[in-house]
Amino acid sequence: MEVIQVLHMNGSGAGDFSYANNSLLQSKVISMTRPIAEEAINNLYCSTFPTSFTIADLGCSSGPNTLMAVSQLIKTVENSRQKLNKKPIEYQVLLNDLPGNDFNTIFKSLPNFLENLKMEIGGDVGPCLFTGVPGSFYGRLFPSKSVHFIHSSYSLHWLSKVPQGLEESKRNIYLVNASPKRVVKAYYKQFQEDFELFLKCRGEELVKGGSMVLTLLGRRSQDPTSKECCYIWELLALALNDMVSQVFFFQNYIINFPKICC
Amino acid sequence: MEVIQVLHMNGSGAGDFSYANNSLLQSKVISMTRPIAEEAINNLYCSTFPTSFTIADLGCSSGPNTLMAVSQLIKTVENSRQKLNKKPIEYQVLLNDLPGNDFNTIFKSLPNFLENLKMEIGGDVGPCLFTGVPGSFYGRLFPSKSVHFIHSSYSLHWLSKVPQGLEESKRNIYLVNASPKRVVKAYYKQFQEDFELFLKCRGEELVKGGSMVLTLLGRRSQDPTSKECCYIWELLALALNDMVSQVFFFQNYIINFPKICC
Repeated sequence: MEVIQVLHMNGSGAGDFSYANNSLLQSKVISMTRPIAEEAINNLYCSTFPTSFTIADLGCSSGPNTLMAVSQLIKTVENSRQKLNKKPIEYQVLLNDLPGNDFNTIFKSLPNFLENLKMEIGGDVGPCLFTGVPGSFYGRLFPSKSVHFIHSSYSLHWLSKVPQGLEESKRNIYLVNASPKRVVKAYYKQFQEDFELFLKCRGEELVKGGSMVLTLLGRRSQDPTSKECCYIWELLALALNDMVSQVFFFQNYIINFPKICC
Repeated sequence: MEVIQVLHMNGSGAGDFSYANNSLLQSKVISMTRPIAEEAINNLYCSTFPTSFTIADLGCSSGPNTLMAVSQLIKTVENSRQKLNKKPIEYQVLLNDLPGNDFNTIFKSLPNFLENLKMEIGGDVGPCLFTGVPGSFYGRLFPSKSVHFIHSSYSLHWLSKVPQGLEESKRNIYLVNASPKRVVKAYYKQFQEDFELFLKCRGEELVKGGSMVLTLLGRRSQDPTSKECCYIWELLALALNDMVSQVFFFQNYIINFPKICC
């Protein structure tokens, strides 16, 4: 029995251990990068003045952050539009995540969210049309040349699959301090392939002159196995391995128990 | 206490009493109208040969019928395209239902469905991009002039709200054999308003020359209160009223029970 090498986010949108109730860090990251995203979308709007504006959020998740970024983006465009006295425009918001994401919870919250958004913006706001797009962003998601602005925060560090060549790293879930070079290279190669495919797909989907703001996890150190980025996964792997051994102990206990009784 | 006058579909996509496991009638209706829908989409494709084709299904529900209609429509277009030796096209499928619909179950089934669809079609198929659009079709759902083909089966008999003026019909859930004219008129007026709004919205969303195939419940009799269309709802109202009176009885029993014990 081995600790599996793939981690998934908790798909359910509710409960103490859900992503929705454990996503304060991701919320802070969206706030930190907010001025960059706002400037980008404002420049895009003011350079083209489209009558319909399609915004995609990739890796939208299900929780308080899901609609935070896009609502800020819509407010930014609306601020400029109303100042410049332009006619109301249509917004199409494409919320993307893997098919296992809790889209039901997002969709149920939309009627209230839209009511509040329109009240906050004030004035004459055009239709805000929200859709859910289930699928991996390492593949095509939207029609060709259909999206004006793509936003993705804290999602692109999730690889499309477990890299090949991790035989020497079986009891770990990511790079560790002692990872051999081959393992480091395997992760690096997988990221390169994934990111290239990501850019190719988005290149087909963005309208001419469209914009993209991507926020990725990074590190300050040159060393990819430095504690700065691996330590938490190393600790988690230790905990998981410990849990696995406990399961073995527990299984043995259950099996032996009737023998003690008899 | 009154029997509520609004009926909802069972939103959950699983379980014995789910719509998914009780939708054989709706499935038969889709099969019966299949030649009409196929002819309409084929004519549309062959008159314009678009490079991307957007199909919407309104009131898609969550169950075996959800993807049945759209997969037949895609197969029809693909059949013509391959016969005419045209280049692969992009499909965008917009699955719409109310925000309480079980979109999660649909989305989770999509990867397998797409794999099977591509295998069944065979040859070189373009991207098939599926999205969920939560919202009432008595309002805007899609961007202006963005949809080529709209399909809706067995959905448009659901009104947007309980009509006004049903004071004389309190213990019923729809028209009954003895409904006064005022009640008949109230339902008729609500349908007229709803359907007018529906057509207005779809008119804005369809591309020029786009098509729509709508399947609605009808009746042969001139009499709107004839048994042909009301009888099932009359029986259901009787059953619900009976259940409500049982609840009262049961409540009284519970309240009285401690008294008997003491």
